[in-house]
Amino acid sequence: MTHTHQTAPTQFAEANGVRFAYRRFGKPGGVPLVFNMHFMGTMDHWDPAVTDGFAKDREVILFDNAGVSSSSGQVPHTIAGMGANAIDFVRALGLKQVDVLGFSIGGLVAQEITLQAPDLVRRLVLVGTGPRSGESMDTGTPEGKEIFGATYKSPDDLWLRVQFTPSEASQAAGREFITRFRRRSENRDPEVSQEAASRQRAAIGNWGAKRDNAWDYLKQIKQPTLVVNGSNDVIIYTVNSFILQQRLHNAKLILYPDAAHGSLLQYPEMFVRDVSSFLDQKQWA
Amino acid sequence: MTHTHQTAPTQFAEANGVRFAYRRFGKPGGVPLVFNMHFMGTMDHWDPAVTDGFAKDREVILFDNAGVSSSSGQVPHTIAGMGANAIDFVRALGLKQVDVLGFSIGGLVAQEITLQAPDLVRRLVLVGTGPRSGESMDTGTPEGKEIFGATYKSPDDLWLRVQFTPSEASQAAGREFITRFRRRSENRDPEVSQEAASRQRAAIGNWGAKRDNAWDYLKQIKQPTLVVNGSNDVIIYTVNSFILQQRLHNAKLILYPDAAHGSLLQYPEMFVRDVSSFLDQKQWA
Repeated sequence: MTHTHQTAPTQFAEANGVRFAYRRFGKPGGVPLVFNMHFMGTMDHWDPAVTDGFAKDREVILFDNAGVSSSSGQVPHTIAGMGANAIDFVRALGLKQVDVLGFSIGGLVAQEITLQAPDLVRRLVLVGTGPRSGESMDTGTPEGKEIFGATYKSPDDLWLRVQFTPSEASQAAGREFITRFRRRSENRDPEVSQEAASRQRAAIGNWGAKRDNAWDYLKQIKQPTLVVNGSNDVIIYTVNSFILQQRLHNAKLILYPDAAHGSLLQYPEMFVRDVSSFLDQKQWA
Repeated sequence: MTHTHQTAPTQFAEANGVRFAYRRFGKPGGVPLVFNMHFMGTMDHWDPAVTDGFAKDREVILFDNAGVSSSSGQVPHTIAGMGANAIDFVRALGLKQVDVLGFSIGGLVAQEITLQAPDLVRRLVLVGTGPRSGESMDTGTPEGKEIFGATYKSPDDLWLRVQFTPSEASQAAGREFITRFRRRSENRDPEVSQEAASRQRAAIGNWGAKRDNAWDYLKQIKQPTLVVNGSNDVIIYTVNSFILQQRLHNAKLILYPDAAHGSLLQYPEMFVRDVSSFLDQKQWA
């Protein structure tokens, strides 16, 4: 049976004392694409239009990193620790090379995976994310603090503000995402615990802390990299995507119009097309 | 007979006392793509890999603006004047709607076309260019002055420095471009005169002059716009492409790795694919 985002069973892989929950589906035989999730997100927070879109042409692997949702263990206090855990997970599947996609905090983890295990990573996709010591990444943005600090009738209302702009078109796209997000009705992941969220927050602050020559490390990443964001990300400012592209050795940047942190959720078809084109391109600078 | 970049005859259209030289080829029936050339460039300075790449799926129109190469008339002292001339030319062909691509100074002209005749323009592609009062666009960049001010054994050596980065890969791509650039052997355009170049330079300086609220005008452009540049444009700094995307109403940005002012010449296939995907996309923000 060919599985989809909705039907893929949650499986488990053991590594270094952690039982990692994952789902794996799509067209096997090539280099799988491993998805690294955003702050407070579980495997269910990926957009089925994105994951199933990729699954037509490649294998897709979703997972909960250590301490998150269905995975055992504890969320580390550093992004480097999360990167090490992600590498353990990928190796536990017996994989020698993968493409790595990271969204928000997942984009920080994706950078750490690449730095710590360069042989494991063929190509890198960084969405709605930034470099160490990026602009307003130590304290978080004022907009982000207001959005995450407010109270909402439903968690949906939080995500509509985090991931989409206030424009009518973006909010409409957001409501369509919420509908897709609910489509998987069985065996959903449990929500991320407050403790796990608080540890994730500490790790982001640690990553964002101001350092001298903070961006030099990006020159160590030699993999072809695609950096993607919305024009108006107020969670991790869009300029951080520009900084990533300017400092990385070999990166292409795409910014989408009238889009916020969740540009991939707003334009899932364009995102899948743009990323697939990048991943499949034979010759690359 | 189906024409290509190499075989398309130079034709002429008369408007407002100017005899405009143009070449028109490719697949008719859709919205034609009108190309606006860079400083000191003629129709021959377009890359056949780009123009023939587009011509497979759409009609391509190259032209010399007034006072340039095979066209009569005089180069205006302002970009606004060049935009008005370009509009005259497009209307002289009897066209009601076109897609407009502009490269470098052609990107400034493309903005003026859109501002002055919004109904004429369906979608806009701005390559290696910037906004009014853009960063270092009043005086020109120090790198640009050095590059254009130096003496070269061959004009090829000038363009290799203007359009490509110093990296081995970029220079190799540059030499391939030069080979393609020579492929049209008959009925080439004459070089741009020193007087025309000097007037173009004055118009660029005028466009670049510092103004208050200089970027507000970009909000008047409602057309879906794709902004493209290389990661390291030292002629019109890459940050100007970021500024365009951030201030335009509805723009997508793509920056290519290890590329300079001539990113479209370095990655012609990727450029054609990315731009075609943008032009053909049915739904747009």
